[in-house]
Amino acid sequence: MTEPLERQNDHPRLAWIAGVGASAGLGAALARRFAREGLTVVVTGRSHERLDARVAEIRGAGGHALALPGDVTSESDLAAITRQLADAGTLEVAIFNAAGATRAPTLELTAEQFEAAWRVTTLGGFLFARAALQPLLARGHGSLLFTGATASLRGRPPFAAFASAKAGLRSLAQSLAREFGPRNIHVAHVVIDGGIDGERLRTSAPQRVSERGPDGLLDPADIADAYWYLHRQSRSAWSQEIDLRPFNESF
Amino acid sequence: MTEPLERQNDHPRLAWIAGVGASAGLGAALARRFAREGLTVVVTGRSHERLDARVAEIRGAGGHALALPGDVTSESDLAAITRQLADAGTLEVAIFNAAGATRAPTLELTAEQFEAAWRVTTLGGFLFARAALQPLLARGHGSLLFTGATASLRGRPPFAAFASAKAGLRSLAQSLAREFGPRNIHVAHVVIDGGIDGERLRTSAPQRVSERGPDGLLDPADIADAYWYLHRQSRSAWSQEIDLRPFNESF
Amino acid sequence: MTEPLERQNDHPRLAWIAGVGASAGLGAALARRFAREGLTVVVTGRSHERLDARVAEIRGAGGHALALPGDVTSESDLAAITRQLADAGTLEVAIFNAAGATRAPTLELTAEQFEAAWRVTTLGGFLFARAALQPLLARGHGSLLFTGATASLRGRPPFAAFASAKAGLRSLAQSLAREFGPRNIHVAHVVIDGGIDGERLRTSAPQRVSERGPDGLLDPADIADAYWYLHRQSRSAWSQEIDLRPFNESF
Amino acid sequence: MTEPLERQNDHPRLAWIAGVGASAGLGAALARRFAREGLTVVVTGRSHERLDARVAEIRGAGGHALALPGDVTSESDLAAITRQLADAGTLEVAIFNAAGATRAPTLELTAEQFEAAWRVTTLGGFLFARAALQPLLARGHGSLLFTGATASLRGRPPFAAFASAKAGLRSLAQSLAREFGPRNIHVAHVVIDGGIDGERLRTSAPQRVSERGPDGLLDPADIADAYWYLHRQSRSAWSQEIDLRPFNESF
Repeated sequence: MTEPLERQNDHPRLAWIAGVGASAGLGAALARRFAREGLTVVVTGRSHERLDARVAEIRGAGGHALALPGDVTSESDLAAITRQLADAGTLEVAIFNAAGATRAPTLELTAEQFEAAWRVTTLGGFLFARAALQPLLARGHGSLLFTGATASLRGRPPFAAFASAKAGLRSLAQSLAREFGPRNIHVAHVVIDGGIDGERLRTSAPQRVSERGPDGLLDPADIADAYWYLHRQSRSAWSQEIDLRPFNESF
Repeated sequence: MTEPLERQNDHPRLAWIAGVGASAGLGAALARRFAREGLTVVVTGRSHERLDARVAEIRGAGGHALALPGDVTSESDLAAITRQLADAGTLEVAIFNAAGATRAPTLELTAEQFEAAWRVTTLGGFLFARAALQPLLARGHGSLLFTGATASLRGRPPFAAFASAKAGLRSLAQSLAREFGPRNIHVAHVVIDGGIDGERLRTSAPQRVSERGPDGLLDPADIADAYWYLHRQSRSAWSQEIDLRPFNESF
Repeated sequence: MTEPLERQNDHPRLAWIAGVGASAGLGAALARRFAREGLTVVVTGRSHERLDARVAEIRGAGGHALALPGDVTSESDLAAITRQLADAGTLEVAIFNAAGATRAPTLELTAEQFEAAWRVTTLGGFLFARAALQPLLARGHGSLLFTGATASLRGRPPFAAFASAKAGLRSLAQSLAREFGPRNIHVAHVVIDGGIDGERLRTSAPQRVSERGPDGLLDPADIADAYWYLHRQSRSAWSQEIDLRPFNESF
Repeated sequence: MTEPLERQNDHPRLAWIAGVGASAGLGAALARRFAREGLTVVVTGRSHERLDARVAEIRGAGGHALALPGDVTSESDLAAITRQLADAGTLEVAIFNAAGATRAPTLELTAEQFEAAWRVTTLGGFLFARAALQPLLARGHGSLLFTGATASLRGRPPFAAFASAKAGLRSLAQSLAREFGPRNIHVAHVVIDGGIDGERLRTSAPQRVSERGPDGLLDPADIADAYWYLHRQSRSAWSQEIDLRPFNESF
């Protein structure tokens, strides 16, 4: 962590975040947080419009951002993105925040749904990690962070597909930590245990949001603090996994 | 567990085992064990020859067995098999023992290898479970058992793909246990922590086999005992997960 | 496991069980189970009357039993008991089933209550293990089994004292397994996750017992089967930990 | 977290740290870190001299500190300390960093050694927590942090006593988190997985220190950063447990 925090204009330091969508989501909060610290944020997701909106917002606040749309399950999309990343600056931190959730009784899950959850969540994590590790290893240090969930630790209906995929991603993060930690890459997994106060819950379960009371859902900005903290940890004391939950969450 | 252990000839009680291959492997040992207890063993795997050899061996020992070859990642294969299962008797226990292992530094893994490991190990487990649960639920009780490994609990290179897939399978087994336990189906996961004294190790690492000394590798017949025990547990005290390792294994 | 299962009259094979009390409890069920298999059961607990009743019951059923009352937290009691054990036969299996439960909001727990829970549950487990390991190691093989609980894995009010003590016992069982497994002693820990259908619940919460429905609480005899199974496992495939819960238990 | 970070001179904000000893230890690093943030640090330990040296050092650097010597296993010592704490200011964060380590083959551990490890590590943690929770609850918010170790998660010889005690402390931290989180007290447990670059290792194993290479041991100042981070987390996203290890540590 020898570089100054100020952005070096001639050679931007990049934070690449996959799984960026709505303004009220975690991806957006991560992008804002890393931009605020002076990094040039590269946002990836499937919606051009949403990525453009995120970039506009960050630039409006004086930050630096770049939209590189694409599908994390597509090797060719990722290859194209990483070529553009190389032109844009030096990758310092990569965050995998994409996930494919499905909710259904297990016998009603189709093979396609089970596969789709894995494809976005786990295969996407693998392909993203592989794409990010090349420039991180070339630079000699950096961070690779993964978004996990309660389901990462515990399979439970009606989340059999999502939990299986998230457990596979968590295992992958462990393998990567053991393999690339000694090569100076900090690989960490954040277990988000509780509802995120974001677009999804506010739309789908507004009553749950109000019942939880102040701070009873995870504020995306507070979650993003944890990712920034992980990225800034000194390598003598790296965390591989941390959990995050609201103060009044049952667990 | 109201039925007598003796085989009822007019309506055979079936043990369906997927992932049956070599004579010295775990699938074969499971087949022998459940046949010895009077069940008609239905063996599934990709090699017709190996399945036929297993059936011949069991019949030679006075047991009942049936080969239903197929690929657990194929819904149509599984549909064909379950139709034949229904004709053959009543399913009492189903065991998923298939797995796809890949060993490589993570950056050398291709997307195809990462996917293949998941497809056989995790998707196969899901499709097999779905196929087996229908007749088990129709009967009103029974067991669904999964083979796990050290890697199920812990991601580690060079097993990133295998571990991720096995972690996904373990999570699935948990979801199924929580969903179908109250419906009288015993879902359990066996963590095999150590080398199995089977064809694979005897061929690939004969020195390791001899160095371990007597009982220093898991005897497939001893592992099979655990599956039989799990199947016979009374429902007031079901295990969801057990580990198995040689007495002198480090862990 | 070279000895025949029949009792050798000239030199009895002993099962020593600490934490034996009421007829409807787990300790009593363990004693009955191991007596039924032909072992001479040595029961330890603090109540002479209850131990005598257990011995009378086992003898009445044609089994062999011996009461050696004492306090597992007392080194001198344990020393006296192990001297008598040596005269009575050869120790083959030792089971630690004692526990001290306290239920209170954490700030209302006194230091004495917190210590008492640990003293019976954890220190007792350590002293018992030390006393049992000497004859087991001298014989060259045998089993040392510990009773765990949901609380062993998870601290939760109002069980802070009990859970802390049980977690300490579980850790001890792991240390012992790693140290004495290679010396041929099978150390295993049984996580009992749910209410036991025994004297305690039938007296304190009869409604809960009836609400759970048939097999909705753990039958002590079914739990005892698991201990017997663990004792009989071949050393090529030992379990270090198994969980047990009713089929309809939430977890 | 409504208060400004600057120290309020008329009513100091207190960080109480138990388990403070040598200058090169974690307790001292924690004291320096929280003093640097403007809190008045209250250091507790058994050595008056060491505590006085810590206080002198912090004051020399412009910070505020107070030595309140005592034994965390003594209720009367803790009662005297908490009376003095109340006079000194308002408790904002309490850190339990004491531990009693013993290293021996399990059969060579005496009952006294097994008990002593628990008494300092676990009972001390309980008594300290109880003493700290009263003023924290009165204030309405604050943090209670516990130092854990690899052994907290895993029993292993020759650390049977230490691991059992640490597992008991971890369970206690979980109970407290579940009980007092909803009452606005952040309870977290830090799993330190690796050697600390402190007085103990530099004296007892200087070769190990040099072999590990730069950052190959945990720098106490880096560990202290994690405690400060935990204390500053917003309550919408609290961590209950984080691990810390050097980048090149095997795990």
